[in-house]
Amino acid sequence: MSELKGACIIGQSGGPTAVINSSALGVIETALDCGSITRVLGAAHGIRGVLDDKLYDMSQEDREELKLMRYTPSSALGSCRYKLADPDVDDTDYKRILEIFKKYDVRYFFYNGGNDSMDTCNKISKYMQKVGYECRVMGVPKTIDNDLNGTDHCPGFSSAAKFIATSCMEVHRDAHVYDTGMVTVVEIMGRHAGWLAGSAALATWAGYGPDLIYLPEVDFDMDKFIADVTAIYNKTGKCMVAVSEGIHYADGRFVSEAKTSATDGFGHAQLGGLAAMLAEIIKEKTGAKVRGIELSLLQRCASHCASARDINEAYMAGQAAVEAAVAGETDKMVAFDVTRDGANYTCTTALKPLDICANFEKKVPREWINAEGNGIEQPFIDYVLPLIQGELNVPQENSLPRFAKLKKVLTTEM
Amino acid sequence: MSELKGACIIGQSGGPTAVINSSALGVIETALDCGSITRVLGAAHGIRGVLDDKLYDMSQEDREELKLMRYTPSSALGSCRYKLADPDVDDTDYKRILEIFKKYDVRYFFYNGGNDSMDTCNKISKYMQKVGYECRVMGVPKTIDNDLNGTDHCPGFSSAAKFIATSCMEVHRDAHVYDTGMVTVVEIMGRHAGWLAGSAALATWAGYGPDLIYLPEVDFDMDKFIADVTAIYNKTGKCMVAVSEGIHYADGRFVSEAKTSATDGFGHAQLGGLAAMLAEIIKEKTGAKVRGIELSLLQRCASHCASARDINEAYMAGQAAVEAAVAGETDKMVAFDVTRDGANYTCTTALKPLDICANFEKKVPREWINAEGNGIEQPFIDYVLPLIQGELNVPQENSLPRFAKLKKVLTTEM
Repeated sequence: MSELKGACIIGQSGGPTAVINSSALGVIETALDCGSITRVLGAAHGIRGVLDDKLYDMSQEDREELKLMRYTPSSALGSCRYKLADPDVDDTDYKRILEIFKKYDVRYFFYNGGNDSMDTCNKISKYMQKVGYECRVMGVPKTIDNDLNGTDHCPGFSSAAKFIATSCMEVHRDAHVYDTGMVTVVEIMGRHAGWLAGSAALATWAGYGPDLIYLPEVDFDMDKFIADVTAIYNKTGKCMVAVSEGIHYADGRFVSEAKTSATDGFGHAQLGGLAAMLAEIIKEKTGAKVRGIELSLLQRCASHCASARDINEAYMAGQAAVEAAVAGETDKMVAFDVTRDGANYTCTTALKPLDICANFEKKVPREWINAEGNGIEQPFIDYVLPLIQGELNVPQENSLPRFAKLKKVLTTEM
Repeated sequence: MSELKGACIIGQSGGPTAVINSSALGVIETALDCGSITRVLGAAHGIRGVLDDKLYDMSQEDREELKLMRYTPSSALGSCRYKLADPDVDDTDYKRILEIFKKYDVRYFFYNGGNDSMDTCNKISKYMQKVGYECRVMGVPKTIDNDLNGTDHCPGFSSAAKFIATSCMEVHRDAHVYDTGMVTVVEIMGRHAGWLAGSAALATWAGYGPDLIYLPEVDFDMDKFIADVTAIYNKTGKCMVAVSEGIHYADGRFVSEAKTSATDGFGHAQLGGLAAMLAEIIKEKTGAKVRGIELSLLQRCASHCASARDINEAYMAGQAAVEAAVAGETDKMVAFDVTRDGANYTCTTALKPLDICANFEKKVPREWINAEGNGIEQPFIDYVLPLIQGELNVPQENSLPRFAKLKKVLTTEM
């Protein structure tokens, strides 16, 4: 493969994570130090920055400051949720992207995101091939939801799982302190896949966690839920429940949206979400003191509680994307191949065609969930436990996190 | 003062914190190693354990395991919210307490809690004096609310403040990632005093925090709130707000309870609390994308993000209580005297009469809040910043917290 000289663009897309900036750093540092890549441009708010010609010159950043991206949550370059049209229907955006690529002689495009971002990546790659513009396009995976196909796991998931497990352990202690009854419902992200809510089982495995866990992989039954909780509450005076925000009835309706449904019959108005609603239902049914807790954004941005392994792997994914592209690869997503053999865990990068990664949601295998559909089996623990390992020394100032402060100098020259 | 030989009881009461067990450990270790104290008994669920004769023999615990209490959140001995009657009206409980004290020859009583617990302590102390039973009674302060009178600050507050500041910084990054508008409302504990919500200002001070902060010390005005948020949102496209759960209108009604009030006119049903309600109001008024986040129990149990200084001071308070009691003191609460002189911070223990500590809520000084009542002034930062200092090495197993596992052997012998 002949050497391809030119600029690169790195963009970040979709919901941020605690480690997406570590992946971006892996791309940026590797690209800055790579002879083939002449300029490293950061897209402001993902593909929107390309369309709007808002590109940061990453060589203007202080290299030491840049390194703090490893521990800075959320997307340092900005993110977007912009979905490109089907190019056969409307190729306006693609023409514009090509125009910008030509303007800056962009020959490498790295896109850091989840399902939708891999779709964006794939569409751009196919379009550039079609119009004969040589450009190597690589996807760098990211999603706390862990639902990307073709990879053992996704950067971002492991840190969210660690925060969820740690927080559930702490909340469990707090929710068991009184000599009076108490039911606690913890709501965890994950609209279609239950990887995050399932990770609450790590807390239970460690001795202090939910008694019951409900994932979207199993149809939710309100009567069964009430019976499950009541049985444990009546026996122990306490019950802790973890639910995925995406739990739904057999007909597909989200439980969180079924507030006025005639089927569940509770008719609760709700602003505070699923945890509050379920807690209120349990309160009515059992008379128990209840508390609904929504982990909300905290679970995806808690870099102070990130998995060191996740941070390192996220970086590795970004680095591998640049190295592979420079070596001639294109149209691929960086994936992780993992072997778990007792205490031995090894994770290496692999390249998967963008086609198989985009637009497919990987679910938790049914056999990793118990038969009753209200708990997690050991294979899930064996899967996730290695991912949360490793301690950090997060850079701090005054005992508060010290985030990367980027200059974000917009590129003006051609 | 002559030496007083006898058993001691340590009880924990009220809402738990990340460091209340560090105070209990300070009491237990000091008492176990003290010649005058013949037995160390832990009360199950505070004063309830005394009334129910449920007392743990702390000498049965493994000393190394016990040390993990330093990093274990919530109340390891169990807590209660039991309020003793006025002994002049009903002395049933006091007679029972005296009976138990006599049964085990209890001559030292250490009670670890907030306002109500200092009241309990005070009543027991006065009763024992009245009936002529020699017993030294000491309060060990604890409350995330930081509203105890007579002390510079309370163990538990500093760690909660650190978690709040850290989380607000992380949420700020997450809430500013998109190129679209967003208003985020973070709800923080504190029913009557705004110390915790005010601590969110540390995040702003560090560069990434709320634009607006509302404390219960200033009457809340919904129209003013909407105007404040709208002004910032219109200017920057984003707005982050921190509110104390205890914000109230001028007539004293809590905003969180005013859901059907004719005065605010919004008529929102709410289960999920204040943050969700305020976010919804802003959404209706501005059309902005909104998110309400309630830090809930996480803020008081997040021992993984505790302040090392808080943990050490909490231990010191417990230790000082035992040392003072053995030296002859009684009827006192351990308080902190602090000098803040630039980077120099010193904290020493002092003893304050229980009378002045109980049943009085210390508020944030009005001059530490800005004139508009929607932000925090520098003196608050100068006050709280030293308290959150110090890094921990929290003991872990499999990269998850390793909490103290106590045997809790009930005392059977007299």
